[in-house]
Amino acid sequence: MSAEALLLALRQSLGELAVLTDERDLEPYCHDWRHMFKGRPLCALLPRNTEQVAAAVRLCAAAGYSVVPQGGNTGLSGGATPDDSGRQVVLSLARMNAIRHIDVVGETIEVEAGCVLQTAQEAVAEQGLLLPISLAAEGSARIGGIVSTNAGGTNVLRYGMARARVMGLEVVIADGQVINGLRSLRKDNAGYDWKQWFIGTEGTLGIVTAAVLQLAPMPRYRVTALLAVASAQHSLAVLCAARRAIGETLTGFELMSGAALELVARHQQLRLPLTDSAWYVLLEASSSLPGLREATESLLGDLLEQEMATDGVVAESERQEAELWALRESITEAEGKEGRSIKHDVSVPISAIPAFLAQADQAVQQAFPEARINAFGHAGDGNIHYNVIVAPGVDAAALNRLVHDVVCSFGGSISAEHGIGQYRVSEMVRCRAPAELEIARRVKHALDPHNFLNPGKVLPLQ
Amino acid sequence: MSAEALLLALRQSLGELAVLTDERDLEPYCHDWRHMFKGRPLCALLPRNTEQVAAAVRLCAAAGYSVVPQGGNTGLSGGATPDDSGRQVVLSLARMNAIRHIDVVGETIEVEAGCVLQTAQEAVAEQGLLLPISLAAEGSARIGGIVSTNAGGTNVLRYGMARARVMGLEVVIADGQVINGLRSLRKDNAGYDWKQWFIGTEGTLGIVTAAVLQLAPMPRYRVTALLAVASAQHSLAVLCAARRAIGETLTGFELMSGAALELVARHQQLRLPLTDSAWYVLLEASSSLPGLREATESLLGDLLEQEMATDGVVAESERQEAELWALRESITEAEGKEGRSIKHDVSVPISAIPAFLAQADQAVQQAFPEARINAFGHAGDGNIHYNVIVAPGVDAAALNRLVHDVVCSFGGSISAEHGIGQYRVSEMVRCRAPAELEIARRVKHALDPHNFLNPGKVLPLQ
Repeated sequence: MSAEALLLALRQSLGELAVLTDERDLEPYCHDWRHMFKGRPLCALLPRNTEQVAAAVRLCAAAGYSVVPQGGNTGLSGGATPDDSGRQVVLSLARMNAIRHIDVVGETIEVEAGCVLQTAQEAVAEQGLLLPISLAAEGSARIGGIVSTNAGGTNVLRYGMARARVMGLEVVIADGQVINGLRSLRKDNAGYDWKQWFIGTEGTLGIVTAAVLQLAPMPRYRVTALLAVASAQHSLAVLCAARRAIGETLTGFELMSGAALELVARHQQLRLPLTDSAWYVLLEASSSLPGLREATESLLGDLLEQEMATDGVVAESERQEAELWALRESITEAEGKEGRSIKHDVSVPISAIPAFLAQADQAVQQAFPEARINAFGHAGDGNIHYNVIVAPGVDAAALNRLVHDVVCSFGGSISAEHGIGQYRVSEMVRCRAPAELEIARRVKHALDPHNFLNPGKVLPLQ
Repeated sequence: MSAEALLLALRQSLGELAVLTDERDLEPYCHDWRHMFKGRPLCALLPRNTEQVAAAVRLCAAAGYSVVPQGGNTGLSGGATPDDSGRQVVLSLARMNAIRHIDVVGETIEVEAGCVLQTAQEAVAEQGLLLPISLAAEGSARIGGIVSTNAGGTNVLRYGMARARVMGLEVVIADGQVINGLRSLRKDNAGYDWKQWFIGTEGTLGIVTAAVLQLAPMPRYRVTALLAVASAQHSLAVLCAARRAIGETLTGFELMSGAALELVARHQQLRLPLTDSAWYVLLEASSSLPGLREATESLLGDLLEQEMATDGVVAESERQEAELWALRESITEAEGKEGRSIKHDVSVPISAIPAFLAQADQAVQQAFPEARINAFGHAGDGNIHYNVIVAPGVDAAALNRLVHDVVCSFGGSISAEHGIGQYRVSEMVRCRAPAELEIARRVKHALDPHNFLNPGKVLPLQ
């Protein structure tokens, strides 16, 4: 089928306004959020319902065009960006944004793929419930992308990755079949739990069109504290002490280097309420029980007394909580103002964080003496954003390999939460065992034999 | 290859004592725990390490014998029982029972498939940690089976199914390859999360040989309460109130009918500490914060005052806690003493529990006027063990279909936590959409093209 014939058929099936081909209309769909990747699709599609998604998939497949699903397009690995072959079609779920149902007693929400995360968060909060997925892009990221990338964020420690929230999915697979598994069940062992195959596979096995997510009770009490610690090893002592003292209430446990907060102070004009230190921990806990604040203050006293922390403050108001979080959330922006940075979203076993940091620092400093390391992240999950500020000429790929080799030596992951997309494919191939890739290819071939859905993402093209 | 040649090769590879063929030695491996199914394997194998598992798989595959993996053999759906063709080999993981490593800071355990759940629980408890999988068979069930069946139990409400605990797996697939993903990472989005494929698929896609499980802090405070409620609808009001009052601390929320506890009183001589009621709720909560008991007692006061509950008691000692749990845990045994019972392990959306119970009761009473319903279960997860005590002549399959049809009309599952095994295959085929089964078959074929691993379990043979 010619491009013209395909466009005509798509317009007939989805409507004129759902098929974008004009250069300016297409622009936002052609590149990723960080402008690292740019492509040129035949068109961008904006279906309004699942049947239209299925129809579009069938038409594109028949015409020999592959489909690149796109949600809020906030991904950091180019997973939703088309190539420049002109043989790809972007399928945006943005218009499928309905909240279909909130079950207050069941603590579930059924929502279409295009619903913005924050919209869903706010809708359930009105019912006194929490949708516990929290990340920087929540004002733009859409549920389909959240599910398809198994998104992480700042409360994984307490609530798990996006996968842990998914109770049911509706998916359109490569042959245009709609698989409806929109069940609201906390327990379901009736056969293969096929929804797991589509979570975190970035649209390469199917297009998520709707999801049922498990909610949680909205905690009534919250406490946020910032602590100065002498070393990364000390931060783990703090983590262990916090688990003993306030256990299940721990929601976030963020580690930030003194260098990172120095950047924040300099570029964002945010002042640190503590004395200077090599490392800082931002700790958040929440509970339904009123004793949380007292227990956290008591914990902080013990940490100072036992010299696990050298300084600390517990936020006394929502404003102070926001100020503490602003330090953490400004790091990426401050880093951007400092110059060119090469980012690594890695994870290691929590207990290996100090050794990983020491070895990675040493390896980087030896190979790139002028590089400056900006490390921070979700230490309570073993997830470090190990960013390196470098001169313009530095070979990013070489630096990536250096850092990732250290990660692998600790049994870590080269993508903790950002996914593989097109950005990390070659590094993943290098860092994972051939047998792991082989079984992945087999399942890809089983569900998408013609490599038609988001080709070249997550897995290498051949 | 002849049977004799295969046995010889297996003995050479695994050692004489690891290949059982004697009738008496074989007996325990030939039937399931409830003696519903019985088969006759060529032999039972007891490999000591992963390489021996892989070698056994390759030898059996080459000889045209299929492999039935078996753990503690405590399953309730015949998923680990061989057929009587004589063309199957039972592969028991029982001798691979080492605890390889406990990481206290990382809160993880690496354990071989044959380790008994309770052994692992006790080992981590010594380190002040909790392995939060709790089920009746924990003294015999083994980790490989726990993972392969995605086991549930009494604390799913708080900690999720077994899947939520699995951080890493080592698996032997049908061609004898060992896939090692024994990573201790809380976040890992580097490619397809293939371990998900092997969780809950009952050994039909691969044999789990070892796992890394995520632990949790050991709660310091626990409270157990029994409440009498007028109806199943009232139990949901109690659940909602409990979530508001003690939120994240809720660990278990069990619903029991008055009829179920009448059986317990009569057959087990256990006395109920409350006035007679149509329904009862057993509630367990645990926390690191000391205010838990006070909050729970205050909740109970509110429930009584607002007439959501008609009577209630909070256990004052570990002994009283055990007595309350003994009521719940004796139901199955008491039911067995009452006569023949036909069991259903079903789930529905939590909010649909009352309507499901009403409709199922009506349907059963109409079709089987002399049947008596014994319903209980993990209501906080929407999981009801809907058992029916019947006369010897009653057609079990017809009753199954009747109950399962009601389950499906509520978007429920015909197997909440017991899996499909061989027991529920035909009902699963009847209750799930053809498209769901088709993609399951495709993935089965991709990973086990000759249908060599546990054939006929979970999926129909053809």
